Amino acid sequence: MNDTTRLTIEDLYARVVAILTKAGLNAVQAGALGSVIVAGERDGAKSHGIYRIEGVMRTVKAGKVVPDAVPEFGVDDGTAILRVDARGGFANPAFELGLPHLAERARKLGLAALVINDCTHFAALWPEVEAIAGHGLAGLAMCPSYASVAPTGGTRPLLGTNPLAFAWPRTDGTPYVFDFATSVAARGEIELKRRAGEPLPEGWAIDPQGQPTTDPEAALAGAMLSFGGHKGSAIGTMIELLAGIMIGDLTSPESLEQLGTTTLAPAHGELILAFSPEAFAKGRPRDPFARAEVLFEAILGQGARLPSQRRFAARERSRSEGIVLSAAETALLDRLLERGLDAVS
Amino acid sequence: MNDTTRLTIEDLYARVVAILTKAGLNAVQAGALGSVIVAGERDGAKSHGIYRIEGVMRTVKAGKVVPDAVPEFGVDDGTAILRVDARGGFANPAFELGLPHLAERARKLGLAALVINDCTHFAALWPEVEAIAGHGLAGLAMCPSYASVAPTGGTRPLLGTNPLAFAWPRTDGTPYVFDFATSVAARGEIELKRRAGEPLPEGWAIDPQGQPTTDPEAALAGAMLSFGGHKGSAIGTMIELLAGIMIGDLTSPESLEQLGTTTLAPAHGELILAFSPEAFAKGRPRDPFARAEVLFEAILGQGARLPSQRRFAARERSRSEGIVLSAAETALLDRLLERGLDAVS
Repeated sequence: MNDTTRLTIEDLYARVVAILTKAGLNAVQAGALGSVIVAGERDGAKSHGIYRIEGVMRTVKAGKVVPDAVPEFGVDDGTAILRVDARGGFANPAFELGLPHLAERARKLGLAALVINDCTHFAALWPEVEAIAGHGLAGLAMCPSYASVAPTGGTRPLLGTNPLAFAWPRTDGTPYVFDFATSVAARGEIELKRRAGEPLPEGWAIDPQGQPTTDPEAALAGAMLSFGGHKGSAIGTMIELLAGIMIGDLTSPESLEQLGTTTLAPAHGELILAFSPEAFAKGRPRDPFARAEVLFEAILGQGARLPSQRRFAARERSRSEGIVLSAAETALLDRLLERGLDAVS
Repeated sequence: MNDTTRLTIEDLYARVVAILTKAGLNAVQAGALGSVIVAGERDGAKSHGIYRIEGVMRTVKAGKVVPDAVPEFGVDDGTAILRVDARGGFANPAFELGLPHLAERARKLGLAALVINDCTHFAALWPEVEAIAGHGLAGLAMCPSYASVAPTGGTRPLLGTNPLAFAWPRTDGTPYVFDFATSVAARGEIELKRRAGEPLPEGWAIDPQGQPTTDPEAALAGAMLSFGGHKGSAIGTMIELLAGIMIGDLTSPESLEQLGTTTLAPAHGELILAFSPEAFAKGRPRDPFARAEVLFEAILGQGARLPSQRRFAARERSRSEGIVLSAAETALLDRLLERGLDAVS
């Protein structure tokens, strides 16, 4: 452990925000992005940690995101739909702006939706659904990506990796949370395999000729496959419809066409639903939160895990012991802070 | 084809309704159930066709469903949540009662939920989401089942097969629809394999000792597995939370406990969401329905299928050529009509 550095969560946050500020992001963009990037490192979710900073910077440098955008809350017509226009910036500050409105409306109507339009998305969705659970609500979030997944039975990229995330509030503080790509693997996982020079497991991807491959380079040039065969492919398609087309924003193929590359963060929209368990359970016997605990105990009681257990354990360790970065990671952060956008191509 | 009988959709519907009426169902129950059972046969979805009638009758005979229940529309507080109390009857007439209210509320608020409580569920969910699409809305439906699926990493039944169904309205008449169990296979498929004396594919199930099995009997005595590993297991858990616990109705383990057997139709609730694409797309450029067609064309254009294509093709054939029943199927219908509840054990 001689080559590692141990940082507090707050120190890493300050470093990441400084890098993003140097790269041209304004305070709301840098703050919101810094939060989710550091949350990734804190939770041991490396594929959404500091390795994402370069992607953010490349996207800024390419002029594909508005680094100083100030998101704007849309016209509120009193319905179950709330809107935030990210104005070409990242999704995260737009979500932060919309969240209190979403929570208020879900408490009032029992169910509400937050639509984020015209944003660039690069992070995981679990920080968002966890924040909804922090309001005592269940959250469901989804968004397109860029065309990189072939529909089941197809041969070419069309769907995005289209993440789906859900959270249910728990009385002990950490919610029940899942967040996964509707592809077999997240693009970030394939990218990490490529960097590590490791082959992919079977069934993750097809090559540019539509044939199965375990080569990360061929997979990135070809197409990924949906998780769970035709069922995952159907869910991925539903996300294109609901969180792309229905909200009047880009689908994954449109996002790729606009971006022209899969190496930058994709532009599109996002759909987030919030449910009030109290409103739904009104008039029915028994407390939904207590009943949910019985279900979780039954899952754990047969030796199965809850989806975010490892992440929450890592979070606990990071809070008490700090975040450990390798020498290479520290050097990366130093280089990005020193050189700003010159550090990326 | 000497031993087959060809019936019109209407004739088969009349026969099924007559059988259900003889079995003690009132007009709303028999009518709604007759519709979905005949829809299954009409669409070539045998696992939800006339073979389900005996299950309905066994459930009636066991006193586990109220065959003459009249569903009741709940208190409407003007929120996004609408409720129908099935009053111990089947889910289908409760859905029929709630649908126009759900459609009206979704058009008004952009998004609305229909909660069905205290129902017995035995049918597919696609008739319901298709009916929502018939109102020009997107529909998402889910419900628990009874404990028959082990959570990923577990060894015993806990989750239900928990179906998830979605429909998007299309201008040409047949919507984009998927409806699948969140288990690898539907319980009905395993039951059909058992009847046919065929082994299961690998990965469908574990035996009562928690070991992988391809024996349908052992699978029915053990536990089924989720589709797509931990991701499908997470979605199945979400359905327990949203469509069981949140709506104040039974989870899959509670339903099994109340029923005491997996051979009868399970009692629980159901959650159905309706989205107005027009409301969500308001103020955004381009028509969501036209854009969706571009996506579907792109899927079909690379040789992939849309999820309900085969079912819609069968529907077309049934409409023009009628429904073909085998001699055994005709004999079954005759026997059920003649003997009523005495025909089932």
